[in-house]
Amino acid sequence: MTFQFEIIDRDAATRARTGIIRTARGNVETPAFLPVGTRGAVKGMAPWELEDIGFKMLLSNTYHLYLRPGAELIHEAGGLHAFMNWPHPILTDSGGFQVFSLSKTLKVEEEGVFFRSVYDGSEHLLTPEKAVSIQESLASDIAMILDHCTAYPASREEVEASVATTLRWAKISVRKKKPGEQALFGIVQGGGYPDLRVRSAEETVAMDFPGYGIGGLSVGEPRELMLECLESQTAVLPESKPRHLLGIGDPEGLLQAIALGVDLFDCVMPTRMARNGVAFTREGKVNLRHARYRSDLLPLEGDCACPACKNFSRAYLRHLHKGNEMLGHRLLTWHNLSFMRQLILDCRAAIGAGRMVELIQEWKGWDTLHSG
Amino acid sequence: MTFQFEIIDRDAATRARTGIIRTARGNVETPAFLPVGTRGAVKGMAPWELEDIGFKMLLSNTYHLYLRPGAELIHEAGGLHAFMNWPHPILTDSGGFQVFSLSKTLKVEEEGVFFRSVYDGSEHLLTPEKAVSIQESLASDIAMILDHCTAYPASREEVEASVATTLRWAKISVRKKKPGEQALFGIVQGGGYPDLRVRSAEETVAMDFPGYGIGGLSVGEPRELMLECLESQTAVLPESKPRHLLGIGDPEGLLQAIALGVDLFDCVMPTRMARNGVAFTREGKVNLRHARYRSDLLPLEGDCACPACKNFSRAYLRHLHKGNEMLGHRLLTWHNLSFMRQLILDCRAAIGAGRMVELIQEWKGWDTLHSG
Repeated sequence: MTFQFEIIDRDAATRARTGIIRTARGNVETPAFLPVGTRGAVKGMAPWELEDIGFKMLLSNTYHLYLRPGAELIHEAGGLHAFMNWPHPILTDSGGFQVFSLSKTLKVEEEGVFFRSVYDGSEHLLTPEKAVSIQESLASDIAMILDHCTAYPASREEVEASVATTLRWAKISVRKKKPGEQALFGIVQGGGYPDLRVRSAEETVAMDFPGYGIGGLSVGEPRELMLECLESQTAVLPESKPRHLLGIGDPEGLLQAIALGVDLFDCVMPTRMARNGVAFTREGKVNLRHARYRSDLLPLEGDCACPACKNFSRAYLRHLHKGNEMLGHRLLTWHNLSFMRQLILDCRAAIGAGRMVELIQEWKGWDTLHSG
Repeated sequence: MTFQFEIIDRDAATRARTGIIRTARGNVETPAFLPVGTRGAVKGMAPWELEDIGFKMLLSNTYHLYLRPGAELIHEAGGLHAFMNWPHPILTDSGGFQVFSLSKTLKVEEEGVFFRSVYDGSEHLLTPEKAVSIQESLASDIAMILDHCTAYPASREEVEASVATTLRWAKISVRKKKPGEQALFGIVQGGGYPDLRVRSAEETVAMDFPGYGIGGLSVGEPRELMLECLESQTAVLPESKPRHLLGIGDPEGLLQAIALGVDLFDCVMPTRMARNGVAFTREGKVNLRHARYRSDLLPLEGDCACPACKNFSRAYLRHLHKGNEMLGHRLLTWHNLSFMRQLILDCRAAIGAGRMVELIQEWKGWDTLHSG
């Protein structure tokens, strides 16, 4: 079946909506948070464990998979789903963000971007055509066009050029894309300039993509400016198409973005923080490196049903973290992903009940809370 | 209930036997291989996953737990079983081996051994009394006396002194031990001198322990000498008591030791090799770092039912290993532990059928085999 998106419910006071994405590999209820399987694996988690938490879609990084183990091998293996044994939908990014953030970008030309691999320093050219064909080899359910990202702050001229390049690449990508089950999302840019955000969105929407990635946000700009940019852009994007906010997943930001009409999220933060010993709880972050947890025999969260909370104490999880034990990283990752999943479920319930504003209010200031 | 051991069956042509160890926390069929939970966790594995493989007893290291997080904390948490959420039997070593191998041993006195912590260089004194009381705090099901280990090679005089020290510490340990459910095993030493092995065993047996650890083997001596020492020692140890060969777990060595009457094994090798990308298979070791596995879409072992073999290809496991992905370490650990469990099951079946000699023959040369 071809890619479809349907809106199910709308919040009364915000632009938040619940919906359902239908793909050949199954349905995904939105809003949704996508765990990040950077190199074809969510760090420490087996695919069936992600299913158990309730996730229906993952994100994986074209940049990393292209460099290691290579798109041809994954194609030979039957695509990324077969390779990593994840039968449900997968969204792949285009590699644009990684090329501009991780790699030593050598130069950006009309045709694409030259960069050096983070793995071995080898030189590569990524073009919009290549980003499409790599993602076709990976056989993800949602692919993304190659976009040109700017840092923050960036001059108006730089951002205008980035918007223009992204639009040109978007057109090339659409021409290159083979018809099939894979949906190709456009990406809108515009840096910290709301008017450029609008222009980027309008011109991208004119190409009529089945969905839109919102890129270049949360790269250092103040949160207020991020929300202003997001608001101006989601006002232009068509209601009937899903919007994916790339790379943002802190609980408060996620709720605020949902209230502005965003449907999909991915972020390494919950899993990266887990490996740094930080657990997310309703009462705030629990940083297990703090000595106060040394002999704390309570679970991370009393009412959480994840294996970390059901089976172990904070003292034990802290002990594992201090010893850099894999089991500790696994358990905290499991917990933080369970937390994100529950947050999304709460959010969907709030939208259905028309109380998204109240939910945002309840979570206000969460980021500065420290439990314990 | 108090610790009991019963022999169930004997091989016709060797000293191999099957048996059952009964403890307050459940029964363990022997021969048994004990996964090593060095710091209160088998690296990367959740306790329920070890149960799923079929393990009924773990080993954990007194040395590591004493230094981090400390025996008092584990005692407060209700003992090691509660702390790590493993309800089945646990064997703890005494810390002797680690003190003499890992630590900078400062000096050995009548009373015990001064050493520096591998974690922070702090100075500690481990005495036989302290080894007993730490293990009582941990509340393991089987504890071990503090032993004095020698390296290989060591002079006869050194080994004689080590045997004498171990015997003196054994007597102190027995006096110190509180009555209860925890069984305290003696440890026999004797380096590479079969006659000292006999003397150590005879004098330790005179103290009538409920079981015996065999220490100081596989520390660099030729395999033939190891087997000679083992043979001379298991001939002296009482038939009716379980024997634990400390720190040996290569498949061939394990089978040979079982044929000499050893019942229990622990070894980090299968799990450490897994983290180094080496999988154990019936056809030999599969070193996934080799380029030949790059696009190998077969499972590690076609007839293995572990999650690594059931769900993933060698190419994917190699990709994970090359990227140092936790999931790869987990899956290979899971496989190698499943392999060890199956080897033990095969061994128990062979003893029951009186064909232990044939089983050893089948595995001859395994260590030099490389699959692929």
